[in-house]
This record gives sequence, C-alpha cells and structure tokens, in this order.
Amino acid sequence: MDLAYFTSASSMPEFVGTTVLDTIGLVIPNIEESILEKMNMKKKYRSLGLLTSRTGAAGQILAIDEAVKATNCEVLSIDLPRDTKGWGGHGNFIIVGSSTVSDARKCIEIALEKVYLHAGEVYISEAGHLEFAFSARAGQALQMGFQAPADRAFGFICGSPAAIGLLIADQAMKASNIELINYWTPSIGTSHSNEVIITVTGETTAVKDAVILARTNGLLLLECMGSTAKSPTGIPYIQ
Amino acid sequence: MDLAYFTSASSMPEFVGTTVLDTIGLVIPNIEESILEKMNMKKKYRSLGLLTSRTGAAGQILAIDEAVKATNCEVLSIDLPRDTKGWGGHGNFIIVGSSTVSDARKCIEIALEKVYLHAGEVYISEAGHLEFAFSARAGQALQMGFQAPADRAFGFICGSPAAIGLLIADQAMKASNIELINYWTPSIGTSHSNEVIITVTGETTAVKDAVILARTNGLLLLECMGSTAKSPTGIPYIQ
Amino acid sequence: MDLAYFTSASSMPEFVGTTVLDTIGLVIPNIEESILEKMNMKKKYRSLGLLTSRTGAAGQILAIDEAVKATNCEVLSIDLPRDTKGWGGHGNFIIVGSSTVSDARKCIEIALEKVYLHAGEVYISEAGHLEFAFSARAGQALQMGFQAPADRAFGFICGSPAAIGLLIADQAMKASNIELINYWTPSIGTSHSNEVIITVTGETTAVKDAVILARTNGLLLLECMGSTAKSPTGIPYIQ
Repeated sequence: MDLAYFTSASSMPEFVGTTVLDTIGLVIPNIEESILEKMNMKKKYRSLGLLTSRTGAAGQILAIDEAVKATNCEVLSIDLPRDTKGWGGHGNFIIVGSSTVSDARKCIEIALEKVYLHAGEVYISEAGHLEFAFSARAGQALQMGFQAPADRAFGFICGSPAAIGLLIADQAMKASNIELINYWTPSIGTSHSNEVIITVTGETTAVKDAVILARTNGLLLLECMGSTAKSPTGIPYIQ
Repeated sequence: MDLAYFTSASSMPEFVGTTVLDTIGLVIPNIEESILEKMNMKKKYRSLGLLTSRTGAAGQILAIDEAVKATNCEVLSIDLPRDTKGWGGHGNFIIVGSSTVSDARKCIEIALEKVYLHAGEVYISEAGHLEFAFSARAGQALQMGFQAPADRAFGFICGSPAAIGLLIADQAMKASNIELINYWTPSIGTSHSNEVIITVTGETTAVKDAVILARTNGLLLLECMGSTAKSPTGIPYIQ
Repeated sequence: MDLAYFTSASSMPEFVGTTVLDTIGLVIPNIEESILEKMNMKKKYRSLGLLTSRTGAAGQILAIDEAVKATNCEVLSIDLPRDTKGWGGHGNFIIVGSSTVSDARKCIEIALEKVYLHAGEVYISEAGHLEFAFSARAGQALQMGFQAPADRAFGFICGSPAAIGLLIADQAMKASNIELINYWTPSIGTSHSNEVIITVTGETTAVKDAVILARTNGLLLLECMGSTAKSPTGIPYIQ
C-alpha cells in the first residue's frame, strides 16, 4: 500500500495537470487487468491518458483531436456525462491509449493546453450557455465523437436552453453553404442535456463563418434572457 | 451573412419573448431543409414555434396545450431535458408547427403568458421542488406529453426528492376518486430526474382536489426538510 | 380530504424523519392499488418504506442493506437519479416492502441513522466529489444495487470528475488483492453521471485497505483541483 504515502496529487506518477472548467489530466502507465477487461476497448493498450472536465465537451474533444495528431496515441472512448455544474450541458471523460506512457503523458499535456485555449468558446450566463468549436481538419477524436468526415473542416454549434441552440443552428445553416452532420436534442444524441447541438462540415471559410454567426446571435439571445454570457478565459479562438 | 448585424436578440425576426424560469420563446419562419429532415417530424411544417425553459415541464406543456387550442398550430415534439439549474427535475423544449409564421408567433406569445401564470405552481426550496398542473380539458400537448385522455380533466403531481413525490401521489389517489394515467420515477418516464410524477384524470372537481391536496402536503414535507418552498411568482393558479 | 389538515409533515402518519444530504424517510402504510400496479414490484407488499436523498447513493444503499438485516423488510427497488444538487453524481430513491407498517417504519428509522453515519464518506469540493462505502458482509440491498456477492466483504469507490474515479480505482485494484465486481462510467451503469465507480469484493481487510487507499488518493486529487473536499459530518466511518 505504498501508494498511500503521497503528500500531494502532483507527486503521483499518474498526475499530468489541471486547467479551467474543472479539468484534470492523468495517465495510467499500466492499467490494471480486470478493469481493462471491463472497459471493452477495441484495442488493449496498457498505457492510458485520461482527460475529464465538469464543463464542456467539444473543446475538450477538439483538444484531444489535436493532441493525438501530435503524438502516437489513439482515442479509445469519449463519454459525455450530464454535467456543467448545475448548467444545462455536458462534461466529458476521454481516454486515449498508447504503447508508451510517455506518449500518453505528452498527449494529455498538449490536450490540457488546448482545453485552456478552447475554453474561450464556452460562454456561460445566468440563464444558459453556448459552446463552439472549429477545426480546419478533423482528426480521430472529432470523427469518433461527432462523425466528422476525416481531414475536412469541422464546426460545432451548441446552445442552451435548447431552443437557442436550434435557432442559431438554423441561422448558421441558412447563411453559409455548409453541410449538416449531426442534429442533437435533449432526447437524441445528448445525455438529456438542455441543448440543441449541430455539427457541420464544408469549405473551411464557410464552416468558420457559420460558427461565428451562431456565436454572435447566441450571445445576443442569452443577453436578452437577463445577463451577459462569459467564457472562463475571455479569449475567443475562432476568428 | 447579414444576420450577424443584429444589435440585440429582440430585433431578430425570430424573437418572441422571455419570461420566468429562464424561458425563451422563438419562431423559425422557414426551417432550413437539412435540419428539418433530421427532426423526423411526422408532418413537415416549415414554420416552427419554439418554447424552452431551464426549469419546469408540466406548466410549459400546459401553456402550449392552451396556446395551440387558440391558434392554428400543432405540437410536433416535447423534450424533457434533465435540468432545473442544479435542482432535481426537468427543463423543457417544445416545438409547434404551423403553415404560417404569424400563427406560430401567436402560439408562442400566448404560451409565454401562460408559462408565467403556471410558474405559480413550481415550488422550490433548498432541499427539493414540487410542480403541479391542472387542466379542465386536455388538448393536444397534454395528450402527447402525458397520454392524457382527450378533452377530459387532467392533473399533474410531481415531488423531489423522489419519495416526496410518491407520498403525495399516494395521498392524492386515496383521497379523491380519480384515475391514474402515468407513474414516473427516476428510472421510468423521466430523464433520470429525482422525482416521482403522477398524472391523473377523472371528474374535474376530483382532479383539482387531488392536486390541491398533493400541493398542501408536498409543501409541508419540503418545509420539514429545512426551508420553505416558493414559486417564482408567488401566485398559485390552481384554486 | 381530511389529510389536507396537517399542520406539519411531522404530524403525518407517514413521516419518519430527515437527515443530512437532503434525505427524507417516509412510510406508506397501505399503498394505493393503482400506483402499486404501475410499480411492477415482484412481490406486492402493501406497506412500503421510502428513503430518498438529493446527494449520495452507496451510503444510502448500504444504510438500507443494514436496516433490512435488522427488520423483516425486503428491498423492492433502488433508483439512482442524476442529482447531487448541481454536482456530478447521483441521488437515490429506495423502496422497501414489509407486511407490517411498523417493520417498514423501523427499517427507515435505522436507515436514516446509518445515512448520517455513512455521509462521513461523501466528500465534496468546489471541483468534484468522492464517495466510498464498505461492508463486511453484503446483504440484499448491496446485492440488488451493485451485484455484490452475498455475505462477502464489499467496497464501493467513486470519483468525480470521472478520470479521478478511474485513477483511484486503478490504484486500489493494483495495491490490494481484491476482485472487481462492477466498472461504471458516464455511459455505463450510471445515470450519465460524471463519475467512474467500481465495486469490489474479497477478503475483508483487503477490501477495506483498497477503499482507504482510494480515499487518500482521491482527496489529494481533488485538492490539486483547487479546494479541499469535505463531508457533511466530518466523521469518516471506514477506519
């Protein structure tokens, strides 16, 4: 029971780091055999990287998407718990696998940096929230999490309460020549969250314009519900 | 991309209004085709009315029930996200369809007024919440949302945490000569909310008496958990 | 409608008591027939005991486990709503049946005392939460709720956000010679909570050591997310 003698989590070999949105990154160098069996992973990596947050989904999946491109890792599972700390959306729990723990660690380190960056597109007001994501080239995590076509531009548009999500989705689809991938509602695709979410693909500029339009209008809609929506960092990355 | 130039949500043609319980009402004059396809609506209306709240379900469904009776609209879908802003119940996301946007708008305007009225029967304390609804004559929304028999009296009784809901349901069923429609629990009928919900039908007076009894006892039960449950308006409508 | 004239919940014949974690205990002496039919109970007891909380699952199930051992009651259903008052886990709603209301009442009285005791192992910080439970001998509730092998030692390890749960589960499984029963994630076994939960069995000391190790490390992990996790009572019972 030597493991019990750590004085802080940061001295554990499994600790990688923390960031905004109640996010923690960890590695498991050699996952215990009976847990691994229950995980039903398609490929039995023994070194795992873990990323989890109380708030947000697309920004963290995109963070992992970029991190696995830069390291020799594979996304094994993406869970979307019903969370957001009392708000109407999701948190996340993502597992990547690697044949070496150093690759898994590097992947989670990169992902934590990206989560901070992407948190600039999670907007929370007293009434609801918005989340946006954009990638010029969808990799493995976006394909697994959102059925994004490989290597094409990808956009994520989400609004809560749900009708706001549907309106900004409709406005974005009409204004830009883009293609709809997913349409998620409280009953379909989500974990009963109070959101409408669409994911889209198409020409890079068209996808980005659509996401920016949805953001502009979504912020106005939350504003009229009584308070200004803000991101934890105050720095949007989709420009 | 002209849509991006609104200065406020209230200047958008789609905006209808907001009210208590973090509720917003919107219309979509001509829903974008690829979203409409994903919606799997039985009937392909192009003009939609949207109502959504972070907190409450029965009061908003009843509001739509009354609003569609007064306008040429049809309820297309009722979603019950797991929400209530950190409390143990649902929010809602309701879509109505119409052949004209003016009908859809009128429907949502009426519904927003009714949501304010019905919010007088959503009671929230530090420990839990209660929701009640009564209609003398169930229309299309109550039939779709709660399997209410058409044109008969309808009652909705809900308590959280769940055991309170079951006790007031039992007391109401025993005290009044009414008929049970639904019995919902965290595992059945709800979106994993911490509630027991019953819906009932019968003679108008018997249904109303049952709901009032459940309300009286539910308020006492929450009171004994440490604080007084209050509605956002302070004005009950079931008398 | 005589029932409407109570002046407080504690004067209702159905009232048993309240305790921490927004928990209330109630009895229903003779459940109304049409509700009983909808309950789909395997055995049609007429006297029911009800336990429900906004926060916590294992501690309350263990409380009922111990209470039914001491009374002539049987666990009929265990629901795990997605709750915890804005945090990432569950509440609970448990129904026991008995042939006499005095047995049902005694069972719930004992359970309420045990809930207070077990609440010492529910730790909540600003970022997340942990829950632990230990029994030297699993009875009917632990068997029903967690597939615990009858009459063997039982351990419950839960961490939120989910990756913390997985890491402390892995550490516990490696450090102690124990056997895994369940591995639950936001997508599997839970009601979309932001948790990883494992349940374990084995030699009494090994199970207890594993739970204590998970607790030690889980508290360190939440600490590094920015604040100290605390239980409502401040008194751990697993020693």
